[in-house]
Amino acid sequence: MQKPTQATLDKIISLCKRKGFVFQTAEIYGGLNGVYDFGHLGFLLRENIKRAWRNSIENDLGEIYTLEGSLLGTQRMWEASGHIDNFHDPMVDCKNCKKRFRTDDGSIDLNKNCPDCGIKNWTEVRNFNLMFKTELGAVADGTAHAYLRPETAQTIFINFKNMMTTNRAKMPFGVAQIGKSFRNEITPKQFLFRLREFEQMELEWFCSQESAMENFEFWLAKRREFYRSLGLNMDRIRFHAHGKEELAHYSVCCTDIEYEFPFGFKELEGIAHRGTFDLTQHSKFSGKDLAVFDEATKTSHTPVVVETSVGVDRLFLTLLFDAYYEDEMDGETRVVLKFAPHIAPIKLAIFPLTKKLEEPALALFKTIKKTVPNIQFDVTGSIGKRYRRQDEIGTPFCITYDFDTEHDNCVTIRDRDSGKQDRIAITDIMSYLTEHGVINS
Amino acid sequence: MQKPTQATLDKIISLCKRKGFVFQTAEIYGGLNGVYDFGHLGFLLRENIKRAWRNSIENDLGEIYTLEGSLLGTQRMWEASGHIDNFHDPMVDCKNCKKRFRTDDGSIDLNKNCPDCGIKNWTEVRNFNLMFKTELGAVADGTAHAYLRPETAQTIFINFKNMMTTNRAKMPFGVAQIGKSFRNEITPKQFLFRLREFEQMELEWFCSQESAMENFEFWLAKRREFYRSLGLNMDRIRFHAHGKEELAHYSVCCTDIEYEFPFGFKELEGIAHRGTFDLTQHSKFSGKDLAVFDEATKTSHTPVVVETSVGVDRLFLTLLFDAYYEDEMDGETRVVLKFAPHIAPIKLAIFPLTKKLEEPALALFKTIKKTVPNIQFDVTGSIGKRYRRQDEIGTPFCITYDFDTEHDNCVTIRDRDSGKQDRIAITDIMSYLTEHGVINS
Ligand SMILES: [Zn+2]
Ligand SMILES: [Zn+2]
Repeated sequence: MQKPTQATLDKIISLCKRKGFVFQTAEIYGGLNGVYDFGHLGFLLRENIKRAWRNSIENDLGEIYTLEGSLLGTQRMWEASGHIDNFHDPMVDCKNCKKRFRTDDGSIDLNKNCPDCGIKNWTEVRNFNLMFKTELGAVADGTAHAYLRPETAQTIFINFKNMMTTNRAKMPFGVAQIGKSFRNEITPKQFLFRLREFEQMELEWFCSQESAMENFEFWLAKRREFYRSLGLNMDRIRFHAHGKEELAHYSVCCTDIEYEFPFGFKELEGIAHRGTFDLTQHSKFSGKDLAVFDEATKTSHTPVVVETSVGVDRLFLTLLFDAYYEDEMDGETRVVLKFAPHIAPIKLAIFPLTKKLEEPALALFKTIKKTVPNIQFDVTGSIGKRYRRQDEIGTPFCITYDFDTEHDNCVTIRDRDSGKQDRIAITDIMSYLTEHGVINS
Repeated sequence: MQKPTQATLDKIISLCKRKGFVFQTAEIYGGLNGVYDFGHLGFLLRENIKRAWRNSIENDLGEIYTLEGSLLGTQRMWEASGHIDNFHDPMVDCKNCKKRFRTDDGSIDLNKNCPDCGIKNWTEVRNFNLMFKTELGAVADGTAHAYLRPETAQTIFINFKNMMTTNRAKMPFGVAQIGKSFRNEITPKQFLFRLREFEQMELEWFCSQESAMENFEFWLAKRREFYRSLGLNMDRIRFHAHGKEELAHYSVCCTDIEYEFPFGFKELEGIAHRGTFDLTQHSKFSGKDLAVFDEATKTSHTPVVVETSVGVDRLFLTLLFDAYYEDEMDGETRVVLKFAPHIAPIKLAIFPLTKKLEEPALALFKTIKKTVPNIQFDVTGSIGKRYRRQDEIGTPFCITYDFDTEHDNCVTIRDRDSGKQDRIAITDIMSYLTEHGVINS
């Protein structure tokens, strides 16, 4: 049985800042709401998440090709996708203090005073489009609009023919993309959960109408495997299949994968059978034929899209919440992140027992770093204090180089979760790390 | 002696589109000038460039930490950096057709008619700021501006204290960042050379005033090594040390690394000793102390910054130009990209001699793909035609599985550049690829 999490949003935010996972953007200038920078450990954790995702979409059903689409896009493509007309939240402005609020997320009550200035003077409720708009420098009359993409998916759909042709792809096949997207949220919240600038990992899978349901089921099963492979507590994961009334009008079926945060079950990923909606829309708006000719039947068909879409930032936050524990170790209370070894940003730390042993311990560190780049060396404070530092950032193993090492060529290696220590030969360190999943064999 | 390049901009653009390296963004909607999407091969080439750059900044002088800064930033940070006041190009508008032109790059003559509409009716020359501006949804009166960053560097400077503290860094150390930047160019040009949306690889190196010149020289030498390691023709590379009159007012010295394109020598990378300008400005504008306290001397100093900055897209274009050859092979003219093996997007192709051998050849392909993911399988057309396909995308080696393979367990492996063929045992393929630099040992 899984114990209830001891993590709270405040504890996670504080840990992220203290250890350099996440900083508020432009913090020294008062910050930018809903936008964050990622420090060294944050960067490494994101890399590990992205690598795990890439591995998770490899499959025996069809090839995966990768696209890196631009963040700036044209007005017309977002008209075709429906984002210009439909991608908005209802909002009101306070006429007194000019502050803006969403009306559909419980953040205000229109019968009450403004929570910011205490006056009651609301505008009408209006729709606010969530796309960031900017102007290109090309013309004087401001008609050259561009939009920051609110999702990566559409940049895949508009390149469907390019990707199919240049890769000589055969259906079914997938086009994957990892990249930034932007949503002009009126009220960003829950730290990395709802951001104005975020990163998505999306796979658009193109298949025939006949095989679509089978392919949808295939990806549903495969995505469950992904969350298991991350080492998450699976009793905090649930699959929510949308009922008919929850589905977008073009969607045949859709399942959300949700994680139980302290603030409730929240969506991490959506898996959707989108029918032929996307390619049909872009074909209609661009006047370009996006159907595929089938040599066998001598007919053209618009492929069906099965999409899986997950946010890097939400998964980042999930992994932190899920790995966070406060427990007793060596008679002290500690904070520990129990990351799976392939997810941990730092794989190993090496400590000389005292400053006298710094030189040989550093030489060992440099040797191992050639094969395992993301390791740390720490000579400051007691060994116990150094363990605590590594526990807090989720490093699976720590090695102590002591006075016996000079004679027996062995070191002490300590396990993050159990605190158990093994004495192993220096020559066995690599095979030990391989056996324990820290490096790939 | 290096032969003059046979590459032209038109040939490179056509190859990029045909083979799926690069597509115009929103091409089916008429495109977006100065913005591109990268297809599967383009993505792989960019990954190889980034990996090579990351490896190239590892050094024995100090640690490198990585930052992933946001693309959206606040007005105040760009005031501090000088971009709000000084980051602009001179431009005029044609009052008749509303088209906008730069006046300093030779694209128009103010004494003549508008090249677009043929009328002469110019506005005054004005300064046009190159930052993209957008509005956040937070307030009603449009005062919540945000800017898309025009460079990654400033997001490092404003996080200097965060990065130093959380990583417990000791000077000298570097903060590296790879990420998108945006410049609202009035007239983007030369394909990937001058873009509105591009990607930078920047290293900001923080060191003491005393060691700054030595550190500058260190990075200068190290950057030359990088270009050599990419396999570029070094006679097309030159270093241009700025004269006093070319230097920015805060810059102590600066050297550009330039490559000889068919359209002339152009800057790829800048290496600059920026003094204490950046941290001093951000300290002044934010009111935060960004100096470092030296325990030895009990005094505070603002670190000096040595910067190296190169564009992923420019390097991408450079590698294509440099690798491009038209030569004779097997009595045919061919186009070949002579990428260094670690830069080539596809490492190996496997061909069954005829369709009858498809099954065992595919089994071999799948086995090798587990270790070398970026390989291709091709069964279509003559072997010669399949060689041409791989030559054009720069694949270093092709393997043919023939009727003898069934009996002798050997395959023919063919070298892209020489056309030379070796007969090797299937069990020796991996060591062959390792010896020839295709995979790391
Ligand atoms: Zn108010
Ligand atoms: Zn005109």
